[in-house]
Amino acid sequence: MVKKIKKYSQGEPLAPWREKIHEVIFEADTPYGRLFDALLIAAITLSVIAVMLDSVESVKAQYGGILDVLEWGFTLLFLVEYILRLISVRKPLMYATSFLGVVDLISILPSFIGLIYAGAETLLVIRVLRVLRVFRVFKLAEYLGEADYLMRALRSSRRKISVFLYTVFIFVVVFGSIMYLVEGEENGFTSIPKAVYWAIITLTTVGYGDIVPQTHIGQMIASTVMIMGYAIIAVPTGIYSTELAKVYKQSVTNHACLSCGEDGHDQDANFCKYCGEQL
Amino acid sequence: MVKKIKKYSQGEPLAPWREKIHEVIFEADTPYGRLFDALLIAAITLSVIAVMLDSVESVKAQYGGILDVLEWGFTLLFLVEYILRLISVRKPLMYATSFLGVVDLISILPSFIGLIYAGAETLLVIRVLRVLRVFRVFKLAEYLGEADYLMRALRSSRRKISVFLYTVFIFVVVFGSIMYLVEGEENGFTSIPKAVYWAIITLTTVGYGDIVPQTHIGQMIASTVMIMGYAIIAVPTGIYSTELAKVYKQSVTNHACLSCGEDGHDQDANFCKYCGEQL
Amino acid sequence: MVKKIKKYSQGEPLAPWREKIHEVIFEADTPYGRLFDALLIAAITLSVIAVMLDSVESVKAQYGGILDVLEWGFTLLFLVEYILRLISVRKPLMYATSFLGVVDLISILPSFIGLIYAGAETLLVIRVLRVLRVFRVFKLAEYLGEADYLMRALRSSRRKISVFLYTVFIFVVVFGSIMYLVEGEENGFTSIPKAVYWAIITLTTVGYGDIVPQTHIGQMIASTVMIMGYAIIAVPTGIYSTELAKVYKQSVTNHACLSCGEDGHDQDANFCKYCGEQL
Amino acid sequence: MVKKIKKYSQGEPLAPWREKIHEVIFEADTPYGRLFDALLIAAITLSVIAVMLDSVESVKAQYGGILDVLEWGFTLLFLVEYILRLISVRKPLMYATSFLGVVDLISILPSFIGLIYAGAETLLVIRVLRVLRVFRVFKLAEYLGEADYLMRALRSSRRKISVFLYTVFIFVVVFGSIMYLVEGEENGFTSIPKAVYWAIITLTTVGYGDIVPQTHIGQMIASTVMIMGYAIIAVPTGIYSTELAKVYKQSVTNHACLSCGEDGHDQDANFCKYCGEQL
Repeated sequence: MVKKIKKYSQGEPLAPWREKIHEVIFEADTPYGRLFDALLIAAITLSVIAVMLDSVESVKAQYGGILDVLEWGFTLLFLVEYILRLISVRKPLMYATSFLGVVDLISILPSFIGLIYAGAETLLVIRVLRVLRVFRVFKLAEYLGEADYLMRALRSSRRKISVFLYTVFIFVVVFGSIMYLVEGEENGFTSIPKAVYWAIITLTTVGYGDIVPQTHIGQMIASTVMIMGYAIIAVPTGIYSTELAKVYKQSVTNHACLSCGEDGHDQDANFCKYCGEQL
Repeated sequence: MVKKIKKYSQGEPLAPWREKIHEVIFEADTPYGRLFDALLIAAITLSVIAVMLDSVESVKAQYGGILDVLEWGFTLLFLVEYILRLISVRKPLMYATSFLGVVDLISILPSFIGLIYAGAETLLVIRVLRVLRVFRVFKLAEYLGEADYLMRALRSSRRKISVFLYTVFIFVVVFGSIMYLVEGEENGFTSIPKAVYWAIITLTTVGYGDIVPQTHIGQMIASTVMIMGYAIIAVPTGIYSTELAKVYKQSVTNHACLSCGEDGHDQDANFCKYCGEQL
Repeated sequence: MVKKIKKYSQGEPLAPWREKIHEVIFEADTPYGRLFDALLIAAITLSVIAVMLDSVESVKAQYGGILDVLEWGFTLLFLVEYILRLISVRKPLMYATSFLGVVDLISILPSFIGLIYAGAETLLVIRVLRVLRVFRVFKLAEYLGEADYLMRALRSSRRKISVFLYTVFIFVVVFGSIMYLVEGEENGFTSIPKAVYWAIITLTTVGYGDIVPQTHIGQMIASTVMIMGYAIIAVPTGIYSTELAKVYKQSVTNHACLSCGEDGHDQDANFCKYCGEQL
Repeated sequence: MVKKIKKYSQGEPLAPWREKIHEVIFEADTPYGRLFDALLIAAITLSVIAVMLDSVESVKAQYGGILDVLEWGFTLLFLVEYILRLISVRKPLMYATSFLGVVDLISILPSFIGLIYAGAETLLVIRVLRVLRVFRVFKLAEYLGEADYLMRALRSSRRKISVFLYTVFIFVVVFGSIMYLVEGEENGFTSIPKAVYWAIITLTTVGYGDIVPQTHIGQMIASTVMIMGYAIIAVPTGIYSTELAKVYKQSVTNHACLSCGEDGHDQDANFCKYCGEQL
């Protein structure tokens, strides 16, 4: 289940000290590796909270200085980490261009860009993107299997979900357009895209209430959309439940008994439950 | 699994060139057929977006000319396509009166009607209806099986969903009426249909907030409706999940009996459950 | 599966003409019985719509006369039906005091009470209660099995749902009270019951928006409640799905093979799928 | 299935009268024990309702005296109960420091604190916390198994739910930040935390409507968040359904191996999957 990521460890061996750094930084099955990951996730979370607070005016006014210091601290920390990552992998370019590698770089840049460029808000948001690094938590052994499990079910239900989303798309366009005709501009349905936006708000049961039907016919159509939205939520849920059950069943039936050939053994089974032979 | 639609290809053969057109336009299992379908869906999507933008006043003011040209372009494209469809099928009338045939025609008409009739908004909405043509995407091999799968589960859960909807209907009428009595006109519950509309908004957890209970008793009843709505969403979801699992189980086992021809046997079946012959 | 309701047909036989009336009115497995039920449900639906429209002031002003005539028509129709029901059952008192018997009586009374008493709104709502008669639709053969199926799963998940509702109850009381303390009266959380009402609106994802947190801490707590509400909807859904699957599995395994003793045969199986014997 | 809680009954026996009190107060499998629990839950519920009403100003003004008397009555009742609990357990300290023990104490204190300290609102909320005592209802035999069943599924889906919540967390932070950039302060997205709050409201389909996007791009992003929120509700539901089904399957087969004592064998198992002995 838990597949160790070996991407960067094939071919000729790294120097022992680089091997050691690699083990601590990239892997999560040694005590130091686990500790490093735990600390890293704490640092990421704290730095994201700091960035978010930095965008609150009253907080910035009072604690702006502390937040700046913190931000530079985290930036340097992530910079050191990024350099260590580059050093300890066999193919630095491959790492640097991978999704998480780019995210790692993006976590560092804004502070330096901020020295020469003054788009404060944009830089804030780019700094927040380091939250994506939290995905590294799924590298931890106890989450790796679970995340993989959920992803496999998601992948195998991809097309069914697409069919569902196409249908929802057609649905909201048709009902939105009809409401545009029925309610008209005077009731807030100023254009078809706006009316489609209303249909999405209603079908997904979000219901902001910023645009609501005023006419009797409009309210009847809205009722239909609501009840359909309430009922068809069953479709993605049903799809995903079924796929998860399938993936689970497959993981159960990976190993057949060598003696009687029956499968369906649990993952923790040592002996065949049908004939008693060792698995 | 993937059943090829053969509706229009039975009986005496078409002329080879009509056969060729038919293959490209109506089927999706040749490279040209697939390409045609992909381009068609792109054209439909673009034309729907153009229509939707046409309804936004600021956009229309600035780009009205371009949108008109685009609309005439798409209309001519769909006109050519419609004529080719009529030519290449054996029974043009049958195609023209089918659901997708009517939708195809509706995609073309509004531009021409617009020349002699000035109901701009109505025509806009009719033009949007061409979004229904996107359903053709489900003809593509990779979606056909999935859509069929979802539809079969929907069809076999039809009656259970009806029972659920009847119950919801009774529920919203009863609770809406009680709220009409409890809250009264001064709190926005001006009539029973309005109060039923509120009950639908609340039960489906949409919650616009345009009509909300003001009295203590009204808020208690509303709380009950909310919690019931939150809990009974489990019913359609449970129904659909169960049906999907059933359909999946059947699809796994589509070996037909050699003796009576019936299929739908379970995976572990040794004998036909209808005629008793060995499988 | 489809159990015929025999409650009123045990013991000494009724006179043939009463037997005939009973068959048409109470049962749904003869052509006349089915026709009667279909007409009755149409009449109920129409009369409920008439009552609902009667509560809309503008409609009442214009069509009040027609609605009065309709109401008296439906009242007389239901009166005749009620008398026929009383005549054709063996134990009239038992019918009259049953749930549907009381609903049948309530469908008739308001019009007569309206002659001597003038509580128009209350009478309207009582008249609407005849919508409960629509439950008779579940007596129709095609729904009887399905409704029974859904009810059995509901009944066997009764206690789990209770545990869930107890937990939700404790949850909304605790979080509501905390919000009462945090937000206070100036932000609309005027009392603990009001704050609990807010917690129910938020947890069930209804989200009217009539009471919303204004403080930072309040919004953080609200976020927690929302995410919990979003996640724990999984609980009733999971419970009901599992129970439905169980009930389905039981209905599949009702009959074991007399020859090999295996069960798990489908409902439509004529032969054992394991040994080929006739079931 | 129903495991009797034996925590306090090991070691040397209690005096018979303490044993008797213990049986009535702590256990639910004797008639008196059941009666005591039923009365206790009624008392808790009534006292919580009394506290909640006490926070409603109009009620307090009119019935404040009665509510004070009731509160003292319940306080004394719970005090007596608390002393009896302390007397009848073998390890009073262990009970007093357990979760429910602390809740029991908290149910009594506020009334006494109220004599010397005047933080009315805080005390009210602390008094409401006695609602947590309702969890004792799950000690009743008919709920014990069910609650245990739901908890086991929750526990075994703990990590999958965590993966889901991490993903939701990253999701709302990223989309919230983007909306902060797109909509800006003038449209109510005054800071990143506020924008994340909006993303949570939208993703969970609560939809208060207190902060809504005003720009076209903002509404398009909001539509995406809504549809994702509508679709990914399938994930926790699917997880929990699958786990419940697993737990159910295991609970069906709780025969332990006679050789190694392990249980959790499937229904169709002939041999212990851990040690290979015949079951």
